[in-house]
Amino acid sequence: MDIAALKAELDGEVPLEENPRILQQKSRDFYWYSPVLKRQLDAVAADLVATPRSVDELHAALGSAWRNDVPVTVRGAGTGNYGQAMPLAGGLVIDVSALDRVIEIGEGRVVAEPGAILAKIDEATRASGQELRLSPSTYHTASIGGFVAGGSGGVGSIRWGGLRDAGNIIRLRLAALDGSIPSVVDLTGDDIAKASHAYGTTGVITEVEMPLAPAYAWVDLLATFPTLEGAVRYGETLAAADGLLLKNVAVVDASVAGYFKRHAPYLPAGEAVAIVVAAPFAVDDVARLAARAGGTVTLRSDQLDEATRARLPAAFELSWNHTTLRALRVDPAITYLQVLYPQPDICGKVLRIAEIFGDEAPTHLEFVRFDGAVGCFGLPLIRYTTEARLDEIVAIHEDNGCPIFNPHRYTLEEGGMKETDAVQLAFKRRADPKGLLNPGKMIAWDNPDFDYGKPYLFPTLAR
Amino acid sequence: MDIAALKAELDGEVPLEENPRILQQKSRDFYWYSPVLKRQLDAVAADLVATPRSVDELHAALGSAWRNDVPVTVRGAGTGNYGQAMPLAGGLVIDVSALDRVIEIGEGRVVAEPGAILAKIDEATRASGQELRLSPSTYHTASIGGFVAGGSGGVGSIRWGGLRDAGNIIRLRLAALDGSIPSVVDLTGDDIAKASHAYGTTGVITEVEMPLAPAYAWVDLLATFPTLEGAVRYGETLAAADGLLLKNVAVVDASVAGYFKRHAPYLPAGEAVAIVVAAPFAVDDVARLAARAGGTVTLRSDQLDEATRARLPAAFELSWNHTTLRALRVDPAITYLQVLYPQPDICGKVLRIAEIFGDEAPTHLEFVRFDGAVGCFGLPLIRYTTEARLDEIVAIHEDNGCPIFNPHRYTLEEGGMKETDAVQLAFKRRADPKGLLNPGKMIAWDNPDFDYGKPYLFPTLAR
Repeated sequence: MDIAALKAELDGEVPLEENPRILQQKSRDFYWYSPVLKRQLDAVAADLVATPRSVDELHAALGSAWRNDVPVTVRGAGTGNYGQAMPLAGGLVIDVSALDRVIEIGEGRVVAEPGAILAKIDEATRASGQELRLSPSTYHTASIGGFVAGGSGGVGSIRWGGLRDAGNIIRLRLAALDGSIPSVVDLTGDDIAKASHAYGTTGVITEVEMPLAPAYAWVDLLATFPTLEGAVRYGETLAAADGLLLKNVAVVDASVAGYFKRHAPYLPAGEAVAIVVAAPFAVDDVARLAARAGGTVTLRSDQLDEATRARLPAAFELSWNHTTLRALRVDPAITYLQVLYPQPDICGKVLRIAEIFGDEAPTHLEFVRFDGAVGCFGLPLIRYTTEARLDEIVAIHEDNGCPIFNPHRYTLEEGGMKETDAVQLAFKRRADPKGLLNPGKMIAWDNPDFDYGKPYLFPTLAR
Repeated sequence: MDIAALKAELDGEVPLEENPRILQQKSRDFYWYSPVLKRQLDAVAADLVATPRSVDELHAALGSAWRNDVPVTVRGAGTGNYGQAMPLAGGLVIDVSALDRVIEIGEGRVVAEPGAILAKIDEATRASGQELRLSPSTYHTASIGGFVAGGSGGVGSIRWGGLRDAGNIIRLRLAALDGSIPSVVDLTGDDIAKASHAYGTTGVITEVEMPLAPAYAWVDLLATFPTLEGAVRYGETLAAADGLLLKNVAVVDASVAGYFKRHAPYLPAGEAVAIVVAAPFAVDDVARLAARAGGTVTLRSDQLDEATRARLPAAFELSWNHTTLRALRVDPAITYLQVLYPQPDICGKVLRIAEIFGDEAPTHLEFVRFDGAVGCFGLPLIRYTTEARLDEIVAIHEDNGCPIFNPHRYTLEEGGMKETDAVQLAFKRRADPKGLLNPGKMIAWDNPDFDYGKPYLFPTLAR
């Protein structure tokens, strides 16, 4: 790597930054959600940060990296929490936050640059009565490129499934790191999987085309239940209700609800809670079904006065990783896991796991559509003690038929299916023949014979 | 029944008709789809038809029927095919087709009178970018009141489930037959089931409030497959694709496709066909998945020239009961059944049934969402021979784990779950204490101890 040569080439062409504090800041994401990643990645820092103001400038930075063998890690808003935007081998971080234009809005689709913030895209599309289908709970701060490169679904998945599902990404434009002038390719259909959820290891996303859903004046609803089982069964009922237009359905146990400080007046102690975001014309049915399931509707945002509504965080900001964040703010020792509770008998699996761990792993569920059926992801809080115990908790989940997508790993494979993604690997050989894009994140590239029985450690990282 | 007194009361107040040909015409629906119903119901006729021009006039007709003990059968557009709008006991038919106003259009909802034709409602709502979620294939001729009173789902059910699902009917306003001035009640939530799919036996629908979905420029697509299995598996794949916005997914075997005369250039002989209606931004994925499943896309309406597109029936008019209609036009001896192919292994059940019957019952499937999962209804064509054989075909389906909703029965119970609907029965006791509303359609009212092992025969009908 010849970072000095790269710097000389780009100086005056592309905004560069080498202030150590900026380098550190732009080399980090929310990796500190995980005590494991915090230990492993705390020293990670880029040598240089480039903030291109145009796709041409981004191409220039990639060309220079190619010529000078400089590793490139692309960063959106840095709201991920798997260390996916952290430059394990140093080198150049390309911050795409200035590439934030909404280029085109059509019927059911929007074209944007990768740095566009999700909420800003929706501000632009709402004039046409449309909004993005899917977003993480970091909707107000996350970029569309980062979401596509590192996310999997979130708010909206109860209706539309995940980013991996056909139709949820229409097109990605990708710049390769394959020469002084990068190749540019538009990926559609099956080819989208070459670059979605690849942490930028297979190319740099320079434009996205996403589907849009109708925008409604969504209503937040909290329903509390005397038992976790009651709340879970209610969540399942809503998730199976094909005629109710919902945007999110989360369920948390009583001890998790205790971390929702600003919602405390609506959350009786000891009660499990369902957190629902529904279309205005569905909310009466959502409330009725809560009562029938033995719950009590304690909050409906359409029945709050304006001042109260303005003061409360939106319900989606009690869900997905914002649930974890709210707990972390109160108790920094808390971390979390990502669990799949498979069909059939989702509720039985949830209750069994809840009973095994008790207060060590309070229940947090997110209901989604998964391959045309009701799916249920868990993001349990974990009262962290040691890495060994964390691994044990993972193993106990898996022994009970509940796969873990481990958020304490920085590689694509260990956070995912624990196997080589042959499509991404083959594509990386063409798009990044020198292996300069986000080194250390794709085990299959570094070590095709890796044994997934143990954690992967990228060579540059001290243990 | 004192029909003369009723006539004297209403004369000059409500438009009346007693021309025998009109009486016969207004006493019929598409019951002749069934050779069984054709035999049983051919002689059915009202004594008088009233066509109220306002809800007040309708109320006046109901009041007079109450005073004079005249049976009342309410009729929308008469596009049903279970004899549900046929006055088995004679008396008064109330034709609501003049009550066709679209009263109010809001975000995600429309309020209309019962006689409003579905396509006309959509003409009114389309200005706001909205349309009805669900419709039968008789979209251009069916009334919303008739659909709610006698239908169950149809086009749109691949996305929204059925009319029975929470959220797919927002409110029904009902006039009872309980006095000289009818009681009026608005049904919402669980109470909607008291009057939806009740054939007008529990009250007269005078206003409906329905949810609206976004309206898109839907694209029709035909994909042909060398085998029925290929087409069925493709249909299942589409039905499970949460990220693809679809409006209808039907699959027919090669011999059924032969009845689609105007689409013949797009239907190679011997090939099974998937008939898909998709949003414009989903159609590329629909086509790609067809190719991957071994199919050939032979028609995409977005790639036809204007003249060709104008000449062809819409794809939804190849689906649901329009499939049956097209076969009947070619071969009047054909009839059909309504089958549920339950999860799991939908495809296995479909193929087993197809093999048992061969050309006696060519396969026609409609994929839907059913309780939050992929569902599959069959509307197989039946090459009719005798009633005994038809009953045998029904029994063989049921012996193979595939329940039949028998379209050769005119009662609610026999066409449905073959059991008393306690909610509707209890409500009818209040809303129609004299049992004057659509007599003969609710077995539970006439004969609570009926044995569902044999067909029901209403006493006024000659065998």
